[in-house]
Amino acid sequence: MDRIYLDNNATTVVDPKVKQAMEPFWLQRYGNPNSLHRFGTETHPEMGVALDRLYAGIGAADADDVIVNGCATEGNNTILKAAWVDGILEGKKSRIVSTAVEHPSVAHTLDWLEQRGVEVIRLQPNHEGLITPEALAEGFDADKTALVSIMWANNETGIINPVKELAEFCREKGVPFHTDAVQAVGKVPVNLQEVGADYLTFSAHKFHGPKGAGGLFVRSGCSFTPLLHGGEQMGGLRAGTVNVPFFVGMGLAMELAVDSLHYAQTTMATLRNRLEDAILALPDTMVLGKREHRTPNTILASFKGIEGEAFLWDLNQAGVAASTGSACSSESLEADATLRTMVSDADLAHTAVRFSLSRFTTEEEIERVISVVEGTVKRLRAISSTY
Amino acid sequence: MDRIYLDNNATTVVDPKVKQAMEPFWLQRYGNPNSLHRFGTETHPEMGVALDRLYAGIGAADADDVIVNGCATEGNNTILKAAWVDGILEGKKSRIVSTAVEHPSVAHTLDWLEQRGVEVIRLQPNHEGLITPEALAEGFDADKTALVSIMWANNETGIINPVKELAEFCREKGVPFHTDAVQAVGKVPVNLQEVGADYLTFSAHKFHGPKGAGGLFVRSGCSFTPLLHGGEQMGGLRAGTVNVPFFVGMGLAMELAVDSLHYAQTTMATLRNRLEDAILALPDTMVLGKREHRTPNTILASFKGIEGEAFLWDLNQAGVAASTGSACSSESLEADATLRTMVSDADLAHTAVRFSLSRFTTEEEIERVISVVEGTVKRLRAISSTY
Repeated sequence: MDRIYLDNNATTVVDPKVKQAMEPFWLQRYGNPNSLHRFGTETHPEMGVALDRLYAGIGAADADDVIVNGCATEGNNTILKAAWVDGILEGKKSRIVSTAVEHPSVAHTLDWLEQRGVEVIRLQPNHEGLITPEALAEGFDADKTALVSIMWANNETGIINPVKELAEFCREKGVPFHTDAVQAVGKVPVNLQEVGADYLTFSAHKFHGPKGAGGLFVRSGCSFTPLLHGGEQMGGLRAGTVNVPFFVGMGLAMELAVDSLHYAQTTMATLRNRLEDAILALPDTMVLGKREHRTPNTILASFKGIEGEAFLWDLNQAGVAASTGSACSSESLEADATLRTMVSDADLAHTAVRFSLSRFTTEEEIERVISVVEGTVKRLRAISSTY
Repeated sequence: MDRIYLDNNATTVVDPKVKQAMEPFWLQRYGNPNSLHRFGTETHPEMGVALDRLYAGIGAADADDVIVNGCATEGNNTILKAAWVDGILEGKKSRIVSTAVEHPSVAHTLDWLEQRGVEVIRLQPNHEGLITPEALAEGFDADKTALVSIMWANNETGIINPVKELAEFCREKGVPFHTDAVQAVGKVPVNLQEVGADYLTFSAHKFHGPKGAGGLFVRSGCSFTPLLHGGEQMGGLRAGTVNVPFFVGMGLAMELAVDSLHYAQTTMATLRNRLEDAILALPDTMVLGKREHRTPNTILASFKGIEGEAFLWDLNQAGVAASTGSACSSESLEADATLRTMVSDADLAHTAVRFSLSRFTTEEEIERVISVVEGTVKRLRAISSTY
């Protein structure tokens, strides 16, 4: 049986072109880029091309830094802990402002910092799931705030925050603004000429690059204390031998993702909408967030009377991979952070299922998923004690 | 012209078997291991095998943790900064004891911690390049010391420290002992049943695994604050989506490295000795460290009257890749830390060249390198102003 992967917010298949681009660097051109001999220097041209692609992909300027690291978790930890070490531990500031719906790599880092005496403000999204500039402005204290960290797009719902306005507000207040753009890159335009974020994190494996490669944008003039000290890689901002194949692969993955943005926002969005319409055509279902507020690949749907886990199990048996939310909390079966904050009915938070498409998702797959979902809902509601 | 790679302490070629083992995980079995569906769970069997291989390779017990992370730089930063956060920042301890010859990922992390008020003791090696238990014992203050961190084998000279005795001393004193074993794994037996280290770091790309994968051993009962907070990966000790192909690849690389230990200590050592004898047969040359104190693949040789950089350039032109020391400081052309401490003649520290073999190095290659070295020494000394 052919399987259908609709869990692309958790991770994505590597684009075959990306795999191909990494190929020469395993057995042939395996040198350490920091080495002065030919094995080292011969890696530089492709790495240069890759870096250019990363800069172009997010609209970074030449004077900005794009630091290639191990993952977005590392990028998020780097900036949040730098705010602690540089600003708060020094006694200059006391507070980090973020939201109640961040990815665990931000949320749990903030929990840890809070234990260490950092005052953490967690903004609540409004009834539409958005973090608004008004919410940020309320009680904002620039003197106390070391950093504002607000995700570009939510991993569970796909809801896109007004990062341009949020960044502008922070710029006016003179407070650095970081955004976790992991779920934005490749789904919506990410242009740092238009959005004045000071720090931005992304992850290759969310846009058909390999797992284990990420990027951290640092705007020119913004400094931070590195998380990894050691060798002089990345201009001393991130030590560790450069993973050449992934560096090259992530660069190409970025270019391909940006090149397919139009496709993502048209054809892929149409497929997503087809599935979403079919879900909403069933009785007692809902989808979180207005369509126009969301990335074009994501649906977080709630099916009254059906436990999310039971739903996933049935889908899995039918060869369809979906999720209840962040894979980073899948094992602990936590209810989705976003759902908890957006939905007043506590039970509802346990009935959510996330479908996330990619540019490799086909119409045929969506038609089959619709049929599977319809059958599953019927079957599970028939045996539900709450429906 | 065939090229010869004798810079295996900087990085190594990926073993073709390792590349093969990673193959299914790019385009087919690309799921996130944390996902509950089949795409996620089908990665578990190979990951289990890989983890078993890592445990077996270093003699870890079931109750210990082996945390797969991004690199040894990350592992070293994790343990050193945990000692700071857990012990020193809390005011319980004030000191970290290490050595003057650590890799930059330890040395520069300690420099940074020192700026933050940590008292850093940097032990000097003895005249043979060894860090002795006596040196560690001198003035040791268990009440003040949060951590002892001493490398297993040196990256520049290959000199192997008496880690068993150093670990025993720390155990007796009740102080945690960390060792950077990056240059030891695959070259000498690393058995944590025999060596009582509490924390140990290693890096896949030093033993024919991929760049961008490392491991951190944590002995049962030893705790630490993670460097990367976020998802529940690695039992909550290292967040970030697991890089499945590298996880699997590093496991196999470890097994292959351990399986070839006998080869490394016999045939490879013989090849190394052949090259070393030829170097020492030239007038006014020296090799740092007694042969019996060194890993079987490394030679750090000094050639009177010849700048190391000039030597490397000539070797490079002849298709031979060697190094002046750590690739992590290649770009800054720092004199080797070990040389600086072991050699009283300051000039000598600038004349060192490191040759590091691997199990893929052939006899034919060594014969050609000998011929190239002999010619280069002759040529460069003829134009040297100091010889």
